[in-house]
Amino acid sequence: MVRSQWDYEGDVIVVGSGAAAYSAAITCRSKGAEVIMVEKAALYGGTTLRSGGGFWIPNNRFQKERGIDDKKEDATRYMARYSFPHLYDPNDPHLGLPENEYNLISIYYDTASKAVKHLEDIGALKTIQEINWTGKPQVDYMEILPENKGIRGRLLYSLGADGKLAYGGELIRQLKSWADSHNIKVILNHRVNRIIRNQKGEVRGVGAIHKNENVRFGARKAVIFGSGGFTHNPELMLRFQRGPHFGGCAAPSNTGDFVYMAEASGAQLGNMAGAFRAEIVLEEALRDPGGVHNVFYVMGDSILEVNRYGLRFGDEKRNYNDRTMTHFIWDPLRAEWRNMLIFMVYDQRTATLWQGFPPLPVQGVPAPYVISGNTLDQLSLNIDARLASLAAKTGGFRLDSGFTENLKQTVARFNGFARTGIDLDFHRGEFNYDREWTTFPPTIPGTKWPPEDTKNYTMYPLSETGPYFAMILGAGTLDTNGGAIINDKAQVLDTENKPITGLYGAGNCIASPTANAYWGGGSTIGPAMTFGYIAGLNAVQEPVKEN
Amino acid sequence: MVRSQWDYEGDVIVVGSGAAAYSAAITCRSKGAEVIMVEKAALYGGTTLRSGGGFWIPNNRFQKERGIDDKKEDATRYMARYSFPHLYDPNDPHLGLPENEYNLISIYYDTASKAVKHLEDIGALKTIQEINWTGKPQVDYMEILPENKGIRGRLLYSLGADGKLAYGGELIRQLKSWADSHNIKVILNHRVNRIIRNQKGEVRGVGAIHKNENVRFGARKAVIFGSGGFTHNPELMLRFQRGPHFGGCAAPSNTGDFVYMAEASGAQLGNMAGAFRAEIVLEEALRDPGGVHNVFYVMGDSILEVNRYGLRFGDEKRNYNDRTMTHFIWDPLRAEWRNMLIFMVYDQRTATLWQGFPPLPVQGVPAPYVISGNTLDQLSLNIDARLASLAAKTGGFRLDSGFTENLKQTVARFNGFARTGIDLDFHRGEFNYDREWTTFPPTIPGTKWPPEDTKNYTMYPLSETGPYFAMILGAGTLDTNGGAIINDKAQVLDTENKPITGLYGAGNCIASPTANAYWGGGSTIGPAMTFGYIAGLNAVQEPVKEN
Repeated sequence: MVRSQWDYEGDVIVVGSGAAAYSAAITCRSKGAEVIMVEKAALYGGTTLRSGGGFWIPNNRFQKERGIDDKKEDATRYMARYSFPHLYDPNDPHLGLPENEYNLISIYYDTASKAVKHLEDIGALKTIQEINWTGKPQVDYMEILPENKGIRGRLLYSLGADGKLAYGGELIRQLKSWADSHNIKVILNHRVNRIIRNQKGEVRGVGAIHKNENVRFGARKAVIFGSGGFTHNPELMLRFQRGPHFGGCAAPSNTGDFVYMAEASGAQLGNMAGAFRAEIVLEEALRDPGGVHNVFYVMGDSILEVNRYGLRFGDEKRNYNDRTMTHFIWDPLRAEWRNMLIFMVYDQRTATLWQGFPPLPVQGVPAPYVISGNTLDQLSLNIDARLASLAAKTGGFRLDSGFTENLKQTVARFNGFARTGIDLDFHRGEFNYDREWTTFPPTIPGTKWPPEDTKNYTMYPLSETGPYFAMILGAGTLDTNGGAIINDKAQVLDTENKPITGLYGAGNCIASPTANAYWGGGSTIGPAMTFGYIAGLNAVQEPVKEN
Repeated sequence: MVRSQWDYEGDVIVVGSGAAAYSAAITCRSKGAEVIMVEKAALYGGTTLRSGGGFWIPNNRFQKERGIDDKKEDATRYMARYSFPHLYDPNDPHLGLPENEYNLISIYYDTASKAVKHLEDIGALKTIQEINWTGKPQVDYMEILPENKGIRGRLLYSLGADGKLAYGGELIRQLKSWADSHNIKVILNHRVNRIIRNQKGEVRGVGAIHKNENVRFGARKAVIFGSGGFTHNPELMLRFQRGPHFGGCAAPSNTGDFVYMAEASGAQLGNMAGAFRAEIVLEEALRDPGGVHNVFYVMGDSILEVNRYGLRFGDEKRNYNDRTMTHFIWDPLRAEWRNMLIFMVYDQRTATLWQGFPPLPVQGVPAPYVISGNTLDQLSLNIDARLASLAAKTGGFRLDSGFTENLKQTVARFNGFARTGIDLDFHRGEFNYDREWTTFPPTIPGTKWPPEDTKNYTMYPLSETGPYFAMILGAGTLDTNGGAIINDKAQVLDTENKPITGLYGAGNCIASPTANAYWGGGSTIGPAMTFGYIAGLNAVQEPVKEN
């Protein structure tokens, strides 16, 4: 497998260029290693570049400054309980989890704030804690759980040059700026497709394809994968995920290359049915699969989500990850996924007041994915006609014959809840998350909101008169989060639970310690950065390997 | 990797000894090959031995004798629609499926009846079509689907010496008898744990562990895996399946060894979230994980299944596979699986009339997994107390505070349905499957049943007076059915979709062509036998390989 020359050689080769990859590369470089980053796409930054850019960091310095005591015992219980509800045992030393799953959560708590501090200390990152529109540090996504104890302030962001919170683009800009000025090469347009080992079986580099040519990258010490998930590989989605998805906002180059390399390298795979999920506007995802069409927030105060029966099926204000899990309900009387496609229904008031906040279009701008009708009857007919036109891509999914009548009753019932302030069915607005994260003032300035007499500002009656609007939503991902299994040194494990020497992973390409949960805002980038940092620390300590 | 001597050598090595393995081994032997079977357990027969032993064979000779025309177009549409509902497109040449998934379904239709005929022709198997207690050949498990067209008679069994339908033990007895008399060695107590390749990378044999010693099996032509799924490997269940399971009736030795070997061999994995599923009696599964404690039929006419809210959540008469899928409903307000544990509730009449049909105990025999109460209030308290005692193994799953009141209303509502004969909520008894498969006369002889005045014999009111009984059920499997991906020659595919030369698979150790569906009775053994046969036919045509 070895020839005399590598096309490129460094101490550490990092595959990918999102948060996991940059965190790993910068950590290695800060410890003196020569680092080369290899990116498949024409653009650096991966999914992080197009993300909100937050990172969930328990026990961070901002919490301490505010006197918030984010104890390890509480944080690990929350993570374990949310990620593995059926295993959780508060009286077990590992909280009921398998040893490796517990260890990853434990080291995450121990290391996350250190990883951020290290990046700050070397000047690679400036951070800020998010304070939401109500003036408070953010709660977690499952603040409802008793184990969460309502703690606030774990969500950090990069700090922009204007002194304000900045998004994923700025996070990548800061990391790349440090990397560029510290001589970390980022080689774009190279699709890594194989892992190269030396005679001892140690990982010694990777092979990549560039313009149909094979290019070989030698790693004297280690290779770190931070190459993302498999959202954009329909076959892998079919073969591993828990139900139908219709795309996601991951970088279009996230086609799971590392899954195949892991399989070919004898690595164990884990959490393969897992993903960070958010609903997606079906027709936009079909039109433009590489774009960002997720519906993170069902914003405003009167949008309803209903299924093919015209029935609500949950609290529309729940976080995007758990909300999307409600799409995977098998209907044993019809042999179909009951909520595979659902319908976001709203009125003219909402279309006006929250216009421009995705997925609501700016009024007047053509938005063919918005279905309209002057009455709920007409809206229903138009939704079903739209579904009929999409049948070849949706398994022929259609509205139930009772949809229209149920929708009318659903609207009437919701309007009653809005007047009393109490959602007897799904408890909308009872939780801090509902009120602070996903319900926020109109995008139109000068609107007096919320109404002074509201009893629950997450609910406002839909208008008695049309027009009404709807969008078709399916399950989507931010990205999948299953892949090779790592240990608490971020080493990839083989089928005998031994590390594959010289091979590390972090981010959405590995079996995420989050499993099925989304611990809080930044639950994808937080672990990505942290395990990237852990991988980097350990990779630089590897001995130099023979060719 | 090669030493001069193998401990055993044959043309074909078959791993496992259930239906897939025996079908493969016998097919090879019938074509002149020298065959050695290697079984991990102390007993041959795998999961087939403990199964019902039926096999789902479309277009079989019994159907033809009855004038049932089981057309390929209809059968493949039914299989494709049920297995891949979100992809199904009747106007697409591949019915909307990826090419390999379509090919496996297509060749299954073409080959299933040939495989059975071959085993019959060589004298390895005698078969009979199942006629159910109403006097008809069986319908399929999703006869509801329009694509099914209500076809009957695809379910065959082995024919016992008494001229009657016989179960899995007889199926294995017949296959083993032929194998024994044709010099097929079955070597027990050898756990195959590695695939051995020659210098060309061709599969040349397997290594096994026997009494802590390594034993090497050489295969001149090919190795065929028919080694079952991973039901009894909790880590693999956690890492791949779609939700919490509590065991299954697979052979206790089914711990997914081939998943690790496939990963170590660079095979592609598929359908890893898939399983053939049936509910399981939680406490029996915890007490005796290696036993058979599944609940295939919610028998009788008045047993209800309710969830932690005391609410029915489906038609209790649905088939076991689809019924079990209803356990995987995520609750985004509680971060738990809403129906993870459910409760089978019944009265003294049912306990008496259907006694002895699993899971109902024979009256008078101690059955600690049965919870009882003289009233529904008392029953509820006792269920919750039992749950509390199991908390460390169930993530602390408990009844909702509204359980008791809801249960009373649920019983009253069901009793009303029973009187009118119409289940307004879940359509119990509207389908042939409900009436013929899962509802059958009492086990107590001399009972006049069904009542002459019944409007729907699947429903009878629960008694107004106690005692009442309940069992706790969780999701279980017959076995998982994900694993290495095969093509339509049953060759295992590598990560470039190329066959791994000399490596074949069939049964529950490979990515099943059934995906998420249970096409009809015998949907696990039918494909196992058929792809075993396909593997055998192709394996014997392999050239002899170098050491």
